[in-house]
Amino acid sequence: MLDLTADPVTLTRQLVDIESVSRGEQQIADEIEAALRALPHLEVTRRGHTVVARTHLGRAERVVIAGHIDTVPLNDNLPSRLEDGILHGLGSCDMKSGDAVLLHLAATLSEPNRDLTFVLYEAEEIEDEFNGLRKLSESDPHLMEADFAILMEPSGAIVEAGCQGTLRVDVRTTGERAHAARSWKGVNAIHGAHEVLARLNAYDARRPVIDGLEYHEGLNAVFISGGVAGNVLPDECIVSVNHRFAPDRSVEEAEAFVREFFGGFEVTVRDSAPAAMPGLGLPAAKEFLDAVGGEVRPKFGWTDVARFSGLGVPAVNFGPGDPMLAHKQEEHVPVEHIERCERQLRAWLGGA
Amino acid sequence: MLDLTADPVTLTRQLVDIESVSRGEQQIADEIEAALRALPHLEVTRRGHTVVARTHLGRAERVVIAGHIDTVPLNDNLPSRLEDGILHGLGSCDMKSGDAVLLHLAATLSEPNRDLTFVLYEAEEIEDEFNGLRKLSESDPHLMEADFAILMEPSGAIVEAGCQGTLRVDVRTTGERAHAARSWKGVNAIHGAHEVLARLNAYDARRPVIDGLEYHEGLNAVFISGGVAGNVLPDECIVSVNHRFAPDRSVEEAEAFVREFFGGFEVTVRDSAPAAMPGLGLPAAKEFLDAVGGEVRPKFGWTDVARFSGLGVPAVNFGPGDPMLAHKQEEHVPVEHIERCERQLRAWLGGA
Repeated sequence: MLDLTADPVTLTRQLVDIESVSRGEQQIADEIEAALRALPHLEVTRRGHTVVARTHLGRAERVVIAGHIDTVPLNDNLPSRLEDGILHGLGSCDMKSGDAVLLHLAATLSEPNRDLTFVLYEAEEIEDEFNGLRKLSESDPHLMEADFAILMEPSGAIVEAGCQGTLRVDVRTTGERAHAARSWKGVNAIHGAHEVLARLNAYDARRPVIDGLEYHEGLNAVFISGGVAGNVLPDECIVSVNHRFAPDRSVEEAEAFVREFFGGFEVTVRDSAPAAMPGLGLPAAKEFLDAVGGEVRPKFGWTDVARFSGLGVPAVNFGPGDPMLAHKQEEHVPVEHIERCERQLRAWLGGA
Repeated sequence: MLDLTADPVTLTRQLVDIESVSRGEQQIADEIEAALRALPHLEVTRRGHTVVARTHLGRAERVVIAGHIDTVPLNDNLPSRLEDGILHGLGSCDMKSGDAVLLHLAATLSEPNRDLTFVLYEAEEIEDEFNGLRKLSESDPHLMEADFAILMEPSGAIVEAGCQGTLRVDVRTTGERAHAARSWKGVNAIHGAHEVLARLNAYDARRPVIDGLEYHEGLNAVFISGGVAGNVLPDECIVSVNHRFAPDRSVEEAEAFVREFFGGFEVTVRDSAPAAMPGLGLPAAKEFLDAVGGEVRPKFGWTDVARFSGLGVPAVNFGPGDPMLAHKQEEHVPVEHIERCERQLRAWLGGA
């Protein structure tokens, strides 16, 4: 049985040592659910392997604190190992240290100054269709309602606000096949892609400042393919382009930009995910920022904060661990990050 | 047993009905060898499944007449079928009708006005390493010595002179990987290929006139590839380029042109084959041209005539059948082409 009152470092070790690769979260979800159900001040709901626990204290504000409980596959990096103030092991950084902070606060703050909703969700590391937070936002959106949300993704224990959106499109050029020995009888689709690449090469990234944070967009070919045979003029070339867009644009606006950018070419949208506004101007966010020291960076990569943003809830990333270590064999987290995150959140929530 | 004295249309049917997909030429080579060995005016040599038969009449000139005996794979197009003056079936066009003309002349012209060397060779339709004419040019180049050579590749029963050379190179651009969410930290190798494609798009083909024939060069991307993952800036892009060059250039000159054309980029030669000069100014070629009606076109595609050219023997393509039908399921040859080729060659060689 998990002891949620244990210090968050010990609790992190306990969580790391319960293997929970995506689609294998049954055990860890069962243990988390049982531990939370033992706490009389929380109302617990389970959906699949996602567990939600809420206070109902009639506070003026509600805050969601969320973390995913799955990890990427094992890579000879279990069990956990604590050495010189660094905790090593699969999931230590991404993001069981964040989960431990969250669970410890859930157990020990029975009278917080804000109502709290704790969400521990499954399947963040795999295809979107399995994502527990996505499922929850569709099946029980009221469980995610709040004035503010904190996603405990590793962010170096400082606030990374909002996130950029992402859009992937295929830009296609066409031609007409011909034998390479009589090339004037055909039209080469790869040659026709020169203008697509020239425009990409000349792309000038927008860097809008939002809530005082400078975001940085991107437009990049991530794949290119074309060709039929070594002696044939190709009749098709496809450039796959990934657009990362700042939170002041919707997916629709980003798509309109990309379509105009590649005007004259066939553009097909392959997938997309919306950005999330940092929302730092809102009172709940301001107070949170002050409580954790005021340091804040824009989040360039996409994270689940966008799901809260989509529900109208401002959200930030704030968790222990260096995000560049996520998914690495040697992932680890400084004990100091875990302790600092716990201390700052506790203080903000009116704890001792 | 093949009857080489039968009319060439009947002989074509016999040859077509002996299946001889590349690497499966044993039976057809055995039958051809046996039939030629029965002719006292010919000296026969066999190398692998390549058969050479020569006259030794002390004539002032020697002419090689050559044809390959293999076909591309079966495609539900055997046995042969003769219908309304058209002979259908695998190899009917490429190039057993030419072989039949060749074999019929070998059997029935015992006193030609030029010494003749007949070459029936294996494995033209597959990788160059197996090509019977290439092997012969290395093991027994004296068997290919001549003043003039005729390759009976389908050419619409008119002369297609010389052939263009071919060179394939990879043009490579490099960059530096980075996460697509922080693209300014990397260098996109696909974007870097825009200049490669821009140069290809602006390419202005040389069209040199040689022996009165206008050749037409080409420079074409035949493949392009690049990409690591949907969220990663690619660090490599490769454009495979096929250059077809006119017979006034050597492989070395063609390579120098391509390297200069892509100056500033990494260029790696993948394979090459030399062009063949038409050689129409030479007396033997002139007389041949007059004998077959004077109509002549440049050959744009690469053929084995280049192997003769490499040995200093001027060579032309001249055979029944439309070259555009080669390798097609529905390949066929007009009886009229077979008869005309046989008649014209016979007249040129002093036959009745």
